[in-house]
Amino acid sequence: MDVSANKGDGAFVVGVDFGTLSARALVVRVSDGAEAGTAVSEYPHGVIDRVLDGHGELPPDWALQDPGDWTRALGEAVPAAVRDAGIDPAQVIGIATDFTASTCMPVRADGTPLCQRPGLAARPHAYPKLWKHHAAQAHADRINALAHERGEKWIHRYGGKISSEWQFAKALQVLDEDPEMYDQAERWIEAADWIIWQLCGAETRNACTAGYKGIYQDGSYPSREYLGALDPRFAGFAEEKLAHPISPLGDRAGGLTAAAAELTGLPEGIAVAVGNVDAHVTVPAAGPVTPGKMVAIMGTSTCHVMNGAGLAEVPGMCGAVDGGITAGLWGYEAGQSGVGDIFAWFTANAVPGSCEEEARRRGVPLPQLLDELAGALPAGGHGLVALDWAGGNRSVLVDGRLSGVIMGLTLATTAPEIYRALLESTAFGTRKIIETFDASGVPVTEFVVAGGLIKSKPLMQIYADVLRRPLSVIGSDLGGALGSAIHAAVAAGAYPDVPAAAEAMGRVSQDVYRPDPASADVYDELYAEYERLHDYFGRGENKAMYRLRAIRDRVLSGRPEGTS
Amino acid sequence: MDVSANKGDGAFVVGVDFGTLSARALVVRVSDGAEAGTAVSEYPHGVIDRVLDGHGELPPDWALQDPGDWTRALGEAVPAAVRDAGIDPAQVIGIATDFTASTCMPVRADGTPLCQRPGLAARPHAYPKLWKHHAAQAHADRINALAHERGEKWIHRYGGKISSEWQFAKALQVLDEDPEMYDQAERWIEAADWIIWQLCGAETRNACTAGYKGIYQDGSYPSREYLGALDPRFAGFAEEKLAHPISPLGDRAGGLTAAAAELTGLPEGIAVAVGNVDAHVTVPAAGPVTPGKMVAIMGTSTCHVMNGAGLAEVPGMCGAVDGGITAGLWGYEAGQSGVGDIFAWFTANAVPGSCEEEARRRGVPLPQLLDELAGALPAGGHGLVALDWAGGNRSVLVDGRLSGVIMGLTLATTAPEIYRALLESTAFGTRKIIETFDASGVPVTEFVVAGGLIKSKPLMQIYADVLRRPLSVIGSDLGGALGSAIHAAVAAGAYPDVPAAAEAMGRVSQDVYRPDPASADVYDELYAEYERLHDYFGRGENKAMYRLRAIRDRVLSGRPEGTS
Repeated sequence: MDVSANKGDGAFVVGVDFGTLSARALVVRVSDGAEAGTAVSEYPHGVIDRVLDGHGELPPDWALQDPGDWTRALGEAVPAAVRDAGIDPAQVIGIATDFTASTCMPVRADGTPLCQRPGLAARPHAYPKLWKHHAAQAHADRINALAHERGEKWIHRYGGKISSEWQFAKALQVLDEDPEMYDQAERWIEAADWIIWQLCGAETRNACTAGYKGIYQDGSYPSREYLGALDPRFAGFAEEKLAHPISPLGDRAGGLTAAAAELTGLPEGIAVAVGNVDAHVTVPAAGPVTPGKMVAIMGTSTCHVMNGAGLAEVPGMCGAVDGGITAGLWGYEAGQSGVGDIFAWFTANAVPGSCEEEARRRGVPLPQLLDELAGALPAGGHGLVALDWAGGNRSVLVDGRLSGVIMGLTLATTAPEIYRALLESTAFGTRKIIETFDASGVPVTEFVVAGGLIKSKPLMQIYADVLRRPLSVIGSDLGGALGSAIHAAVAAGAYPDVPAAAEAMGRVSQDVYRPDPASADVYDELYAEYERLHDYFGRGENKAMYRLRAIRDRVLSGRPEGTS
Repeated sequence: MDVSANKGDGAFVVGVDFGTLSARALVVRVSDGAEAGTAVSEYPHGVIDRVLDGHGELPPDWALQDPGDWTRALGEAVPAAVRDAGIDPAQVIGIATDFTASTCMPVRADGTPLCQRPGLAARPHAYPKLWKHHAAQAHADRINALAHERGEKWIHRYGGKISSEWQFAKALQVLDEDPEMYDQAERWIEAADWIIWQLCGAETRNACTAGYKGIYQDGSYPSREYLGALDPRFAGFAEEKLAHPISPLGDRAGGLTAAAAELTGLPEGIAVAVGNVDAHVTVPAAGPVTPGKMVAIMGTSTCHVMNGAGLAEVPGMCGAVDGGITAGLWGYEAGQSGVGDIFAWFTANAVPGSCEEEARRRGVPLPQLLDELAGALPAGGHGLVALDWAGGNRSVLVDGRLSGVIMGLTLATTAPEIYRALLESTAFGTRKIIETFDASGVPVTEFVVAGGLIKSKPLMQIYADVLRRPLSVIGSDLGGALGSAIHAAVAAGAYPDVPAAAEAMGRVSQDVYRPDPASADVYDELYAEYERLHDYFGRGENKAMYRLRAIRDRVLSGRPEGTS
């Protein structure tokens, strides 16, 4: 960390980014967003997806977390980051957090997680369900089928599908499988809001998770009638366990309690901002907040977040939410379920030993070698096109049953060529999303990349060429935590609103990668092939991917054909 | 080699199998086909595909051979095989050979190869063009276009396409590029016939290569009018350089000359059979010769050869030739251009170091480990389907511009799973060929496998399951040489005809692999997916593979778009 001014000068804020395996605290100067110090706290329990102590093995697709790890992280990372910054804790005027989502949990009316109640530590449904808990698909299917059957309008704000990852599906699973835990849950709350409760002592509900993960649209949740039709016992779910005033992002949730002050080492009473989500909070960290500026947070998956001036129905979006990213604007979210994940899969499963040996000889990590070799190839020279669906397709097809394709293989095809085709396939997927926004009246005017993959220059250049537009790059490696810090500054009253704070504290390098016209021409041709395969396999003309998956599941479960 | 009877007893024959890199001689007992001794001779010049001494670099796709290597092999391998057999050379009553095809060459009227004439050693077009010389595609295209334009009937005997590998395309290339060599070529002859010329001192033309590689149908070659329309200088090609009485397979071409007797160490005057082709000659080596018995010679590529009782037009065949395999029957040939080649490509380019390490730890070669791992997987459990076109498609689509596809990839897909999908894809390709025969009135009643890939038990079981029929396996590892020996026995008069000799000397293990009904059911489903993709990409609905190849060629040749 490096602050040009004297670290003792001025006011600071703390942003805490709660990830899947750890939380990172960042101390940021209010005046200019300079990052003064940081620290990480790993969760001792990590992701609880195999065995729960005292209970034994969990079913497949489960993923829980221990909320004690989160409060512990506050007590560990925040003081360490302040020490790293070399400032006086008294200089900190506010704190804000962002969280994975939807990570949601059953709590008592006072905020106590059920899993922390006496006798419930071995009860799986008493725990927070991590975003990647995927055991509620059957419940999501019921939610979606009924919504379409009843013509619920809100379903179209979510690309026609509510994810199994979100609040309703997970709560319905609890009701189905452990009704006692459902009954004991006086509130059903996002971890994003629960962590704020721990800081300021009061329940709040932020506009982002309420809208994106809680189906809160136009001032209300799904109706009692709809919920009752899912299950009569579920009729009161929203009224009883969710309902609460919605807080705009950047609002002050309250003051830091004495207990939280002691935990974090920060001054009692300083501003605590309302909760937020890791992807959405990154937008102001990338500088000026304007409609049409899409920020792609590229990691294992990619999340595309963007403000729009008004509401439009964009096919295949994860959600359109009023104030979901920035108060006063419509927030749009789209995504690609596999990006870095696909590259990592290829690196681990399909790269010959000869490449690994070359990496060792040159003393570079294998991913870097692949990047270099693939980056040196000319666009279109491999004769390949791939579909980036090994992890399913989030946008714009919203279909987890799709799978990956590589075509154009010859006996001369090399591993770096296939790797390049996979890099390109994810760029084609992004182009499809951008073109869908553009065609739906929500034009994308600027494209900014954030997240771990910004380190790969060949990948960035491919994106610029495929998208035929310049790529800007966020000016921080810690976009989430910086975004939280910006919200803390607003909650503390240092700026009138998030856009003003973003202007002063956010950072972006404009047009770092520019499209090469010759490559872009080739990519127009390859994208046409991608689009054709995309529609052929993705829009129902050939449902081979569904059938192959069904055959696989039947074979692996040992069930004879025709039974279910 | 093992002969149960006293090796000194009875009569023997020698079969010589001329491959791409070496020739193998096999000494076989006439009475029962027992293999008594064998030896190999590598060609010193191998495949001349990069540099020709005295000339320099060859253009791409060229592949030549030195005929001196072939005569040298006769002098080396034959005596060595006889020594290995421990018999008296005087016991040998006949010799026969089989050759790669179409490997064809310009010679003088006395059989002297042009490349052996003074001053022509550095002249590329003076050399034999090996079967895999692929630089005459433009000439094949002209041949095909004109044949269809003029409605030449013979074109339908070849699946509608004459290959660039065959006699006419290669000769036309010589005329185009080196007319002086074309003029000096008094004869244009298959190596299969040229080698017989060296043994018996007289030119012969065998029915197999004349029919399959020389467009000899219904007693004649393509007409003077047709050839003249290709190029006026080419009008006399067939009459002047090819025409000669056609010899049925198994006929005596002549007696071993004194010079050849000295070269091979065999008795002067013994029977020399007419020439033959490596694949076709294998049919009698696999036991009784009956219509409907398909023999698949599976190696880097697969050649399917089968006798039919009558003539039918089978779409996508390499050729249907009267007496092309066995005199008196119609011989059918089909093929898959990449089989073992695809497995080798995968093994070299797409298997992670972790698999290589496991192979080392277990002390087995990597291909064997992959075979074991893939073989242990259940049919359909990987959720994948692949198209076996990385080397193009020979039958039934006859389209070298097609390419490979793998679909159904997920982040959990493993290398052995992909490998299994590739094994299966070649089985699906074989099923497509068999079903095409069946549907065309040339039913396949028995399926026998020969060639190097019979060693892979998992592959054989997959074929049995996919084809839903029992697999018989040839009883010799040296099917080509044994088939030649059988023809030598017939030429020597030991048997009345090839079927009689095959009955006594050929060997097949019946129904070694039987289909597993449950796997066969799953494969019916997967084959339906294969077929759908096969038709979608292979029959023109989506010509993406053509376009990807064209883009690749344009990019790699550095030519700007729109130029040719």
